[in-house]
Amino acid sequence: MNQIVQKLIDTLGPASVRTGDAIEPRYLGDWSGRSPVPPLAVVLPRSVDEVATVLRLCNEARQSVVPQGGMTGLAGGSIPTGGDVCISMERLVGIEELDEAAATMTVLAGTTLQTVQEAAQAAGFEFALDLGARGSCQIGGNLATNAGGIRVLQSGTAREQVLGLEVVLADGSVLSSMNKMVKNNTGYDLRNLFIGSEGTLGIITRAVLKLKPRRAARSTALCALNDYDGAVALLRSLQSTFGDEIGAFEIMWPEFYDFGVSLTQSKQSPLGEAYPVYALIEQAGFSDDHGERFAAALNAQLEAGVVLNAVIAQSQSETQALWAIREATAELPVKLEPINFDVSLPIGAIGHFVDACRKDFGARWPTHRGFYFGHIGDSNLHVTLDARSIPGVTVEEVDHALYGMVRDYKGSISAEHGIGLLKRPFLGYSRSPAELACMRAIKHALDPHGILNPGKVLPAEGT
Amino acid sequence: MNQIVQKLIDTLGPASVRTGDAIEPRYLGDWSGRSPVPPLAVVLPRSVDEVATVLRLCNEARQSVVPQGGMTGLAGGSIPTGGDVCISMERLVGIEELDEAAATMTVLAGTTLQTVQEAAQAAGFEFALDLGARGSCQIGGNLATNAGGIRVLQSGTAREQVLGLEVVLADGSVLSSMNKMVKNNTGYDLRNLFIGSEGTLGIITRAVLKLKPRRAARSTALCALNDYDGAVALLRSLQSTFGDEIGAFEIMWPEFYDFGVSLTQSKQSPLGEAYPVYALIEQAGFSDDHGERFAAALNAQLEAGVVLNAVIAQSQSETQALWAIREATAELPVKLEPINFDVSLPIGAIGHFVDACRKDFGARWPTHRGFYFGHIGDSNLHVTLDARSIPGVTVEEVDHALYGMVRDYKGSISAEHGIGLLKRPFLGYSRSPAELACMRAIKHALDPHGILNPGKVLPAEGT
Repeated sequence: MNQIVQKLIDTLGPASVRTGDAIEPRYLGDWSGRSPVPPLAVVLPRSVDEVATVLRLCNEARQSVVPQGGMTGLAGGSIPTGGDVCISMERLVGIEELDEAAATMTVLAGTTLQTVQEAAQAAGFEFALDLGARGSCQIGGNLATNAGGIRVLQSGTAREQVLGLEVVLADGSVLSSMNKMVKNNTGYDLRNLFIGSEGTLGIITRAVLKLKPRRAARSTALCALNDYDGAVALLRSLQSTFGDEIGAFEIMWPEFYDFGVSLTQSKQSPLGEAYPVYALIEQAGFSDDHGERFAAALNAQLEAGVVLNAVIAQSQSETQALWAIREATAELPVKLEPINFDVSLPIGAIGHFVDACRKDFGARWPTHRGFYFGHIGDSNLHVTLDARSIPGVTVEEVDHALYGMVRDYKGSISAEHGIGLLKRPFLGYSRSPAELACMRAIKHALDPHGILNPGKVLPAEGT
Repeated sequence: MNQIVQKLIDTLGPASVRTGDAIEPRYLGDWSGRSPVPPLAVVLPRSVDEVATVLRLCNEARQSVVPQGGMTGLAGGSIPTGGDVCISMERLVGIEELDEAAATMTVLAGTTLQTVQEAAQAAGFEFALDLGARGSCQIGGNLATNAGGIRVLQSGTAREQVLGLEVVLADGSVLSSMNKMVKNNTGYDLRNLFIGSEGTLGIITRAVLKLKPRRAARSTALCALNDYDGAVALLRSLQSTFGDEIGAFEIMWPEFYDFGVSLTQSKQSPLGEAYPVYALIEQAGFSDDHGERFAAALNAQLEAGVVLNAVIAQSQSETQALWAIREATAELPVKLEPINFDVSLPIGAIGHFVDACRKDFGARWPTHRGFYFGHIGDSNLHVTLDARSIPGVTVEEVDHALYGMVRDYKGSISAEHGIGLLKRPFLGYSRSPAELACMRAIKHALDPHGILNPGKVLPAEGT
């Protein structure tokens, strides 16, 4: 038995340390599809003190650790890479406080997003972060990766839902910044440094989350547009009428839209004929007449010629039917062999970027099938290529082609999924040498022995 | 002539370096009232390259530098403390781009807040940060101190108005993170580390600012309430009806309210008789009928007994008359000898805190006059004591009494003004030893020779 593993068993007890065949497959891989490498051990601490003890012992032994949440990440940020001790946060669950006056909720990191959402709702509030993996992803992982999702346009990313944080540092010291206040200008903003650092600077153990007032009702519309620039004009016009009541603004180009429609029950587009660009728009307001005001605004855009055609859902089932087209993403891995991208670009450039992709990929790989859709109000574009349509082409070749264009457009190679292991080779496409040097200096200052999730986000020290 | 000063003159030219009597008084002190100490020199770089050159030369010479913006800070963050080279950003002015599709504005750090606001407005947008010093404060200083102001409830602090940042580091390297995208998860969030670091980690030279849709109209109401808890209930109820249309929620306790009323033209409270707590509320909406909906909501609160009495402004001059009571803060230094505090507390605790202050100060200093008011929706309370009412009592004694209570209530000794020089002795009241150690580690990693604004926020290294 390895010495550090024996020490962990002696300290935490055998029920909290799994090794060998006792390690279940769920600790090995995440949703990135990266092939698993079994870790040295999986540790299941029952308290923040135990997390601190594990890190202290591992730091003394220069033992690498990999923090694990719900394992729903898409960038390989929480998978073991060989010889690691995985620290699963699954036993650190629970809502410790819901403060109605402060509109805050204090939670342990292993609590699932859905549990947080439901507790907020039960108290008459809303927790604004939402994403497909809500039932299995953990709030600690959401914060470690600065998760995005479907409400960013309205409420921002995970970062903007947090007031306070507790983090265990590499040496086992507990950094408690469990602030409940909106304004607090007392020194450096440590909170935002750990949020989005993907477990490479510390392990998030607790958080104070912001709650928002619950929105009364939602309207959903599907609009057909002449082109991408028309979609941006529509977004800005609706925002100038409704402010942040515009909660989703999802653009679909025909390749993706037709794929989505082909998977619905009717297999018919709700808009009849085909159009150059489609927008799925959600307006979530507080007042009773918000639906009427939304319909009136869309009507005006129809009359002005910005919107070519539109359908407003009149029932919950019609709403679901419209969203079903956009949520065809879940079927991409079933129907295709997808190579997925999650990139950001300045909003005004996204239309040109899609055209450039179509042209470049068309020239390189005439048989390719590409799909384009995204949270345009958040500058976020998703691109999927079907590997089956380009036999013999490697994922690496497609990565280089796509990320190369992102670099040319001064975009980001990761909008919301993070860097993890998969995108590390391309981090320099979106970050300058000065930025990378600054990140390495911070990493070295907080984790001098490089034990925290080595090789994720940044190359492991000495490599 | 000092060697580094000579080198700066040789490199930048004599027109960009002031020494001795050529240094105007405005470079010496800020609005904190701290006594001035003349610097070695004041440097006025004309470009980011020149800022980089100044820092490179000063870093090589181990010369301390003090970045300066509009000098409107209240915590002494930008005043020279002896032997420093001040770097004024006043020549780095201008709006470099306004991108309507992205809803962003790219500006140089020396641009005043008002210039930014006006340019946003001219393009049909709104820049959400606003504060009294708007005409003279610079956007770089706003970001360096994470300024708050009167719209935080609606739009967050300065931090939340920024997408991208350019910073010159201690060694003169230029860290350009001029991101224009809403979502960008490519490594550590360097942006938020520099925002609020008060010039101790780098000098902000450029920023990409977020623009918001412009709100059509504003309603303003003054409400009388039974107690503080009733004010919080009113806030949460209005937010559940209007969401972030509630743009200001200013609470005044009678000591302050009566002072404010006494300075108005009529000297009469618009509410007639006296009440325990007053709320000045601004609702800023997009729809035409928002004023009617606001009036209806306040009426319902009157009928429910939450609001005891209310006045809604019917004209611009009535709006100004209501705000004039709250803006009596400008007269505090004229009419009194104020000792001012800018603290944060969990929202639910603020009422108890005010009661505790009255009791504690009453017992210590029976003749004291205290004034309480604040941006309650942002957890921010301002407390002013009139030094003339407690002759013989030092500012230090009052600081210790008030900040001691803030510590007991797990509050923050600085909500929006920052730490600077003045509050540094009390930073440990709101931040733990682990947090301070983490801040020092980051400071040392980014500014190993400690040349950047030494002694501000954290003690200078080696002291």
